[in-house]
Amino acid sequence: MKDVMIIGAGPAGLSAGVYCARKMLDTLVISGDIGGQAVLSWEVENYLGYQLISGVELVERFRDHLENFKVELKDGSKVTSLKKSGEFFTLTTNKGDQFSGRSVIVASGKVPSPLGVPGEDKYRGRGVAYCATCDAPLFRGKKVAVIGGGNAALDAALQLAQLASEVNLITGEQHLRGDEIRQNRVLALDGVDVFYSCRVIAINGNTFVESIDLMHAGEERTLPVQGVFVEIGSEPSTSFLPPQVELNDRGEIVIDANNETNTPGLFAAGDVTNVSEKQIIIAAGEGAKASLTAYNWLLKREYLRK
Amino acid sequence: MKDVMIIGAGPAGLSAGVYCARKMLDTLVISGDIGGQAVLSWEVENYLGYQLISGVELVERFRDHLENFKVELKDGSKVTSLKKSGEFFTLTTNKGDQFSGRSVIVASGKVPSPLGVPGEDKYRGRGVAYCATCDAPLFRGKKVAVIGGGNAALDAALQLAQLASEVNLITGEQHLRGDEIRQNRVLALDGVDVFYSCRVIAINGNTFVESIDLMHAGEERTLPVQGVFVEIGSEPSTSFLPPQVELNDRGEIVIDANNETNTPGLFAAGDVTNVSEKQIIIAAGEGAKASLTAYNWLLKREYLRK
Repeated sequence: MKDVMIIGAGPAGLSAGVYCARKMLDTLVISGDIGGQAVLSWEVENYLGYQLISGVELVERFRDHLENFKVELKDGSKVTSLKKSGEFFTLTTNKGDQFSGRSVIVASGKVPSPLGVPGEDKYRGRGVAYCATCDAPLFRGKKVAVIGGGNAALDAALQLAQLASEVNLITGEQHLRGDEIRQNRVLALDGVDVFYSCRVIAINGNTFVESIDLMHAGEERTLPVQGVFVEIGSEPSTSFLPPQVELNDRGEIVIDANNETNTPGLFAAGDVTNVSEKQIIIAAGEGAKASLTAYNWLLKREYLRK
Repeated sequence: MKDVMIIGAGPAGLSAGVYCARKMLDTLVISGDIGGQAVLSWEVENYLGYQLISGVELVERFRDHLENFKVELKDGSKVTSLKKSGEFFTLTTNKGDQFSGRSVIVASGKVPSPLGVPGEDKYRGRGVAYCATCDAPLFRGKKVAVIGGGNAALDAALQLAQLASEVNLITGEQHLRGDEIRQNRVLALDGVDVFYSCRVIAINGNTFVESIDLMHAGEERTLPVQGVFVEIGSEPSTSFLPPQVELNDRGEIVIDANNETNTPGLFAAGDVTNVSEKQIIIAAGEGAKASLTAYNWLLKREYLRK
């Protein structure tokens, strides 16, 4: 029986792990992918204390930090269900393992949202990608489209501009969103064309992607591309939660300022929650807060051995 | 007229500055002491990404990070008043300077709480200290008392144990508080005596501190010491705020999950707020959140030039 089970090992889960370790809680951190969406950031300029670092490198430092402490870290395990029986919690993984704990911190983050158009599923991994950092190098010298207008899409366009022969940035809105600093960089690039108020309606190809169909002001056109990077946001990863946990209309776990949910003993932190901004430094802070709240909760219930 | 004026340059204010800069807001950061209470931490082990770093060094990295951007940083200026006139804000400093802005992020942190006993004011700087990191070296080979039982007091005791000839840790409670890991370290030290359920009632001396009077279970005793480190917590720094800003019963600015206060255009972050845990990583996350909320607020009101 663990004191705390932390589900997810992105910035929120890893920071929660560090804080639980320092409170000497018997802690399990369980995750399918260490770093979560943080590894998708090509360049991180806004994690206070690191002027410029890649998401992958930053996550490595986070992981090293946690591994300094006596915390059980189970990587490569997806949580498929979490049940509350009596006062305590039991989780089950995709490998059939079960773990029990007195409290839980859900820091399972988000997964990329799909476009939901014909051809997307068929060409997933055959030209359709959701992570420029991971997959950009596969499109050297090729024509690509980036779908979206926020920071993730801008970031993808910036990365692809260095490799691809042509980058088409396609947004459904009239303006780009995201940091001005990133917008300016993208707009200053020669190899990037921006399509405003434009919707992707299909992805076409043979074995691999060959083109996309676009709709703009009621007119359809076909754009020849070999790669499609879908960067339109993400959805909270909550399918394993017991039904009593309150979610908002975006499917995010509702927490208060101290990371409590409506379910006693279950806390949440980071992108999976209703905290409106999805940022590494914010998630790290939220993870720390959740741990301290969980610790105080365990202490009050006298669950902790002295 | 600035887009944002950030009051305070601890972790919350500096992180807010980085985020405002990346949104290309015209930003002023104004502070009496860069780093705030973070510089008082001798060893920081829980800022995700840095396994072990001194508060002073961490703050240097924060400052370097902010100075990378085009942000006006006014150091050594204390804000003495902040007024809202019409839609906008004007602040005045102890040097008589005035600045105006469309929005404000208050990140002014906390200041150490005084003991409030006879002799404390008289011997301030003559044996009475509030920052072990700053002043411990002055007490090499001397007898000292540390007043308090939380992390700050434990940290002070750990630092002083390396230098002083005798460390007396005096808490009004029956147990120590703070991280278990720190408690264990303190209790394992030879040169540290812990006095439980004990209250300081006076600080005595001549030119410098010579002893303190303690009360324990109705009995008074005098303990000869040359140094007294007061580590009993801190108070929010809010005296400059306009009266309409809502504070809670601890004098902290009341914010919601997105760092809005009850006053439109005025946001707050870090230790000065009702967020219950005072930690560097949490303050940094809160500062980032406050900036993004301020940015969205400015954008909605069309205050930003394109």
